Amino acid sequence: MYEGVNASDGIGIGVARVAVEPDLSFTPHVPADAGDEKQRYADARAKFTEQTNAQIERMTKTVGEEAAAIMGAHIEFAEDEGIREMVEGSIDSGMCAEQAVSEAYDTYYNMFSNMEDELFRERAADVADVKNGLLADLLDKEVVDLSTLPENSIVVARELTPSMTADIDKDNVAGIITETGGRTSHSAIIARALEIPAVLSVADVTKNIKNGDLLVVDGTNGNIITSPNDHDLAHYRAKARQFAQDKEALEAYRGKQTVTGDGDSVLLVANIGNPDDANVAAEHDCEGVGLFRSEFLFMDAKELPTEDEQFAAYQKVALRMKGQPVIIRTLDVGGDKEIPYLNLQKEENPFMGYRAVRYCLGNPEQYKVQLTALLRASAFGDVKIMVPLVTNIDEIRQVRSLVETCKVELDARGVAYNKSIQIGTMIETPAASLIADDLAAECDFFSIGTNDLIGYTMCADRGNSRVGYLYEVYQPAVLRSLRRIIEEGNKANIMVGMCGEAAADPLLIPVLISFGLGEFSVSAPSILRTRRVISEWTKAEADALTEKVMGLKTSTEVKAMLQSAAR
Amino acid sequence: MYEGVNASDGIGIGVARVAVEPDLSFTPHVPADAGDEKQRYADARAKFTEQTNAQIERMTKTVGEEAAAIMGAHIEFAEDEGIREMVEGSIDSGMCAEQAVSEAYDTYYNMFSNMEDELFRERAADVADVKNGLLADLLDKEVVDLSTLPENSIVVARELTPSMTADIDKDNVAGIITETGGRTSHSAIIARALEIPAVLSVADVTKNIKNGDLLVVDGTNGNIITSPNDHDLAHYRAKARQFAQDKEALEAYRGKQTVTGDGDSVLLVANIGNPDDANVAAEHDCEGVGLFRSEFLFMDAKELPTEDEQFAAYQKVALRMKGQPVIIRTLDVGGDKEIPYLNLQKEENPFMGYRAVRYCLGNPEQYKVQLTALLRASAFGDVKIMVPLVTNIDEIRQVRSLVETCKVELDARGVAYNKSIQIGTMIETPAASLIADDLAAECDFFSIGTNDLIGYTMCADRGNSRVGYLYEVYQPAVLRSLRRIIEEGNKANIMVGMCGEAAADPLLIPVLISFGLGEFSVSAPSILRTRRVISEWTKAEADALTEKVMGLKTSTEVKAMLQSAAR
Repeated sequence: MYEGVNASDGIGIGVARVAVEPDLSFTPHVPADAGDEKQRYADARAKFTEQTNAQIERMTKTVGEEAAAIMGAHIEFAEDEGIREMVEGSIDSGMCAEQAVSEAYDTYYNMFSNMEDELFRERAADVADVKNGLLADLLDKEVVDLSTLPENSIVVARELTPSMTADIDKDNVAGIITETGGRTSHSAIIARALEIPAVLSVADVTKNIKNGDLLVVDGTNGNIITSPNDHDLAHYRAKARQFAQDKEALEAYRGKQTVTGDGDSVLLVANIGNPDDANVAAEHDCEGVGLFRSEFLFMDAKELPTEDEQFAAYQKVALRMKGQPVIIRTLDVGGDKEIPYLNLQKEENPFMGYRAVRYCLGNPEQYKVQLTALLRASAFGDVKIMVPLVTNIDEIRQVRSLVETCKVELDARGVAYNKSIQIGTMIETPAASLIADDLAAECDFFSIGTNDLIGYTMCADRGNSRVGYLYEVYQPAVLRSLRRIIEEGNKANIMVGMCGEAAADPLLIPVLISFGLGEFSVSAPSILRTRRVISEWTKAEADALTEKVMGLKTSTEVKAMLQSAAR
Repeated sequence: MYEGVNASDGIGIGVARVAVEPDLSFTPHVPADAGDEKQRYADARAKFTEQTNAQIERMTKTVGEEAAAIMGAHIEFAEDEGIREMVEGSIDSGMCAEQAVSEAYDTYYNMFSNMEDELFRERAADVADVKNGLLADLLDKEVVDLSTLPENSIVVARELTPSMTADIDKDNVAGIITETGGRTSHSAIIARALEIPAVLSVADVTKNIKNGDLLVVDGTNGNIITSPNDHDLAHYRAKARQFAQDKEALEAYRGKQTVTGDGDSVLLVANIGNPDDANVAAEHDCEGVGLFRSEFLFMDAKELPTEDEQFAAYQKVALRMKGQPVIIRTLDVGGDKEIPYLNLQKEENPFMGYRAVRYCLGNPEQYKVQLTALLRASAFGDVKIMVPLVTNIDEIRQVRSLVETCKVELDARGVAYNKSIQIGTMIETPAASLIADDLAAECDFFSIGTNDLIGYTMCADRGNSRVGYLYEVYQPAVLRSLRRIIEEGNKANIMVGMCGEAAADPLLIPVLISFGLGEFSVSAPSILRTRRVISEWTKAEADALTEKVMGLKTSTEVKAMLQSAAR
């Protein structure tokens, strides 16, 4: 038995397929003609780009557009002009293409990996991936192909590279095991999106496990059982059935209203990233959309999406939701995102930089295109506008004023829109929490973005595992901030929702009911489970628990009390 | 007349010295012997390192050890093994040292500058600086030398490189003008430390101003007056006298108690970075030390400073302050600092990472060395321990527990210390503000670190000029947080001080008096001015103003009201 990081829930039972990397060694030689050699290099590049584009297409279907975008960087590294010049220069001076490619990419790899900055180390892995892809094409070798595995395969790999992940056929892969990666790595995110049980960060597993070994992957607890005996198999088959049954049992909540134990209604809506997600969310029985991230329109484009392109996407979701509320967040980008045509400057501290509403208000003409598209979509459903990263009243006032200008322009164009469209604030900064009363007077709803609110409040980066013990919704400081925001919103009689991951946390739900949260916005697969947990708590029970919880001084105590009270 | 960034206050009148960079062009040649050529390269490196070490020594005396540390990176880039191998490889293949150096550093320069990340662009400037230094040594040319300028020189340069700054002779330089850099650039910081008036970011100034031009540099307003006539000169000489007189008038406050208009005492103490600063602070009439940053001990060392080395530094300050309070902050480092022997991992988001108290509690044996040294120093003065970046009660409890362990060990060693040494919290995170009541029950004092508190609360990086309008102490959210912290501290009867730059802000001082701040910790040059402003406000006047201010909704309104009320 091995232990690792529990990166994707569920039990997988199957046969090991150890993804051994191909032998890409070669003997350097002096090519007869540098021109021909450069052509070989150009052909390899073209083939690589073609393969990668095919992977991107496949990934878009299986794991969504956002995840697929990761692969875009590979094409960039393959076509990078600086690298190309380096390779072609080496070929001109008598090197073969294999050696020239190898040396150029190694130079970049060393550069990136020596920086010892997490950001750049990740890019180093991309560079290595591209080098191997190009070498494989030059040497006519196959890189690991996970698209043709037999049923019930357990993929065992040193590292799940983006290009390998792109090939995974969900129907045939019963589990994933790797030697590297944490819960927030790309491998983990993609495994969860594919609903494949995964255990990551298991040292030397590609050496210790042989092709054909029978394995159990317990992705819920982070365990791998090798050579399971009949007893083990029976145990884990039962667990797998239980996992499937739990999922099935939630079906009882499909089509039901979302109510507390007292029968009080709350809204249970979905977080989505693109119009296709709206279909998935509807299939999971959402009651609307609590957060539609509009970034996908900008990230997947080569230039600024036009008003019509944006309108089409917003309208599609509005129509799909058939009059149910659809909260669309305006563009939330900053210096940590690569959107070339937006000319975002790289920043030392992008999380505390020129991003989201700051960037949008700094580019009002561009922002007006989005606001106009949102207004137009409001003629087709209950579309609401949500402004991210607000820290002061001025920002909301400026957005309101731009919306009024857009309305006048639409009137002049004779285009229909909802004249009383709601404009709300995403509450995700400590500043917004501190001035929640003032903000509530200026907007139509709040939606608490706990992901960033926790990070900024605790000064702890969500992606940094070494401060994971601080990045906790159970921290007394965070709970106090949440209580304050919900109370101030309710005092002003505006809707208060939550679209961060905490809204789907079964432990926290009674506390949120007690605080008076009116809307829970969660990922599609969490909808039925969240509806069940909400139904399990009366207000009086939730209040009693919450009063005790708010008297505690540490997150450990808070979490323990919530766990012992969980239904 | 030109306008630029007002980077260092005061009026400088003098003669332009345009720092033209030397001609470092060369004709590539094939050296007779690669071994000899590599020796030339080694000699250039050695000479460069020697020159840089001399600059570091000079800077340590003129601008302090912290600023001098900037130059350490130059030596690293000169001696970097990867670059050396690249250069020597090129020499082996027939290149001359000049070309090999030039190409290798250009490769690194392009790599860094193409990343378009501010962090790396800054490093690109360092790389270029090192390349020029090495080329100048190889070509036997002089780089710009600012150490031998005549009196009343105004330095005009494209950019003030760290190596140029190191050479500046404060007595002869009346002003500084550059084409690049903002208020927080290294050039600006060093100009202020040297008290030389400086105007930065003036486009094309090295072309438009000629050597020998008579100039006025108005560093207070960010103006440069070229070819001043007699009227201009009279005007600016008067302003320069006024500047000097204002400085002189503050002398009336030397040796006085710090009291409000009602005669109520508050404590006025200094922020220092090393034991020498304590002398400067005492010369400026401080009443103790409100923040002694202990990082210098670690940044300037090649290995972990020993208990005795740390003790000696802390004791020196304690003795210098003769019984006045000395608050020493324990090590505040993270992934954005280069301290090789601490093995700090680079982080994507170091400001929200494993740093300060998090790092210290993760390395308890190392932390105990510092705590023990602080305890020993407490036998020689009123030394207090301050813990940075606290976000929860657990951290303060763990520090207290470590201090108790250290006390037991000192008892066993028979070493004296203050058994009731005070342990306080630096309040600089939104979380600490939210749980200020709980924290107040666990510690002996608060010191508000406004620099980080503003940044985390507003989610705005202090170093990012594009979000400078958000990084404002006058933001209602920030003022509310400050009020809450001070009130909760006072309720618990513990001292509440402030060691961020806001404590010396004349506009804010009445608000801080009204909130009940008990200790103002400011930079040494601000002490007398702060004492004067505090004396100008009675509690009743401060309360009346503050009540109005706290009713305002925007920072613009707040700042305007405070400005109109300023004495």
